[in-house]
Amino acid sequence: MATFNIPPVNKDIAAALQHKIDNKTKPLGSLGQLEKIALQAGAIQQTLSPALQQPTIVVFAGDHGIAKEGVSPFPQEVTYQMVFNFLQGGAGINVFTRQHGMQIRVVDAGVNFDFHQHPGLIHAKVGMGTKSYLHEPAMTMIQCREAIEKGAAIVREIHQEGCNVIGFGEMGISNTSSAAIIMSLLCDIPLAQCIGRGTGLDDEGLAKKCAILSEAVAHHKGIEKTPLQVLSTFGGFEIAMMCGAMLQAAAAGMIILVDGFISTSALLVASGLDKHILDYCIFTHQSNEQGHQLMLAHLNAVPLLQLGMRLGEGTGAAVAYPLIRSAVNFLNEMASFESAGVSNKA
Amino acid sequence: MATFNIPPVNKDIAAALQHKIDNKTKPLGSLGQLEKIALQAGAIQQTLSPALQQPTIVVFAGDHGIAKEGVSPFPQEVTYQMVFNFLQGGAGINVFTRQHGMQIRVVDAGVNFDFHQHPGLIHAKVGMGTKSYLHEPAMTMIQCREAIEKGAAIVREIHQEGCNVIGFGEMGISNTSSAAIIMSLLCDIPLAQCIGRGTGLDDEGLAKKCAILSEAVAHHKGIEKTPLQVLSTFGGFEIAMMCGAMLQAAAAGMIILVDGFISTSALLVASGLDKHILDYCIFTHQSNEQGHQLMLAHLNAVPLLQLGMRLGEGTGAAVAYPLIRSAVNFLNEMASFESAGVSNKA
Repeated sequence: MATFNIPPVNKDIAAALQHKIDNKTKPLGSLGQLEKIALQAGAIQQTLSPALQQPTIVVFAGDHGIAKEGVSPFPQEVTYQMVFNFLQGGAGINVFTRQHGMQIRVVDAGVNFDFHQHPGLIHAKVGMGTKSYLHEPAMTMIQCREAIEKGAAIVREIHQEGCNVIGFGEMGISNTSSAAIIMSLLCDIPLAQCIGRGTGLDDEGLAKKCAILSEAVAHHKGIEKTPLQVLSTFGGFEIAMMCGAMLQAAAAGMIILVDGFISTSALLVASGLDKHILDYCIFTHQSNEQGHQLMLAHLNAVPLLQLGMRLGEGTGAAVAYPLIRSAVNFLNEMASFESAGVSNKA
Repeated sequence: MATFNIPPVNKDIAAALQHKIDNKTKPLGSLGQLEKIALQAGAIQQTLSPALQQPTIVVFAGDHGIAKEGVSPFPQEVTYQMVFNFLQGGAGINVFTRQHGMQIRVVDAGVNFDFHQHPGLIHAKVGMGTKSYLHEPAMTMIQCREAIEKGAAIVREIHQEGCNVIGFGEMGISNTSSAAIIMSLLCDIPLAQCIGRGTGLDDEGLAKKCAILSEAVAHHKGIEKTPLQVLSTFGGFEIAMMCGAMLQAAAAGMIILVDGFISTSALLVASGLDKHILDYCIFTHQSNEQGHQLMLAHLNAVPLLQLGMRLGEGTGAAVAYPLIRSAVNFLNEMASFESAGVSNKA
């Protein structure tokens, strides 16, 4: 597998950025989290005047063998049906990216459907869905590395076209199951605290999901708890590809918009491989999926939005994007006390 | 004073709106608070396809006699200096309204400065700042009614020009003091829980502010605790004008974007005069100013953003505006399960 050389963000510029922020015509600290985002964006780009260029959301779709075991209220074909919905512009992520002038790319990471070289779709299929990890590893290590490399290649191209801020979304029936297990094993948090209702399980369905996932984890109890081993055993192709995409985005110095439960599980793997990736991450929202709050706490992450969303697709990242623009805009456009002739605090 | 006939929002359309929301291609309820906003916007406009037109932020500026007593770390002249900053486009609210294509109107509600009929400023001055309510009522009841009526007239004109979604901001050194007392008296919450650091008081300054405001409340302990009496005794011209503006906005069926601590104190007065106004209100953010959380709880309000902001000027409303657009957009633009050919939950 390609190695990712992610440089830690050089924080030497932080003091100059903070000085610029503190001299804007506003009470000290009064833009709250927007000030932190402005500081982070400036540090990532090593400039006092950061710019957001060609903001892009990449949606990775993949199917999961575990879906056959009945862990989701939706049938597996919804994955490919939603891919068509993305391509036709009718999904939530289409609405929100359109609203904000963001580009959207849709990737077949491993959907159980043949899309016949559909234009508009990025064909990166690793397989026709993963195996059911109730019985065997979801994917081989070769497939896992292939997915990571394909994700990286996709981002490399998007970056070369001029994008410097990128969010990642996903579609894959049953992928909250993968994310919950990845979280449990990589964060060392009891599985029950990681499993949620996904797309809308009732109490009975949730109990069944817990039982099946516990059995799956027990079945593979001998595996090493390394990021790649956990990812290949329990992951989805879309999660693995997102992991590679995130690593490449950080290596290229891009700002990464981290979405919800599934996306953050991909980041858990990626940050396990290279912790410097976290310097480049903005946590856009806290999902309503149980477990995401703990996942964010594990990463010491403070999300921008807490709107009770749990749609996936990168919708949290897209809905939060204007806040990031607001942060960059105030840093670039607001007057200083001096330039506006406003008296500062006594 | 003109009376405001605010019709309660007719909720008969809610079921049809909820049906439309629930048939979008997403798990039930998965857009969280955005779904509630979509429902509210549709109900206010009595349509399944609400539209946001000519979104506007009106910033009311006024000075406060209490500023002389030393309740703020900033000198009073910052109020008029910031008005010039608004007119020159350099303040936070300018940056954020520009970002979102919102109109901005700046109103001299009662600044202690003569602006010489500056173009771009709406001249609605009620006085050269209020009196210090440590010794006498901030304004007369006649001035209070004048401010309310002028606020209403400004909104009437903006509405006639085609605006149907409006937020209100303010600028006025020492106005967190007015807001804290209004809150304490109208919500019956101990004053100490309502007073915060405003633009950035240290511990000593905060203690002094608490002492002065306690003395002021004691000085007027005989007044009736009616909304208008409290407003005229302790308010600011900008708060009174905002109150009238909000009442008129609701009477005209507009969506009201409620900003932070000061704006919500104006709403406390307005909702005390006519509780139906609350049907039209979207609470855009929770300010970092101590007291705002309790104020919102008193109104059973769930804010969209909690970013630790406390800048005033309507910046919370402006920064949150794209979320309201996202709510309306998903309702209008997302495909349904049927139209997209996506299988629904079993």
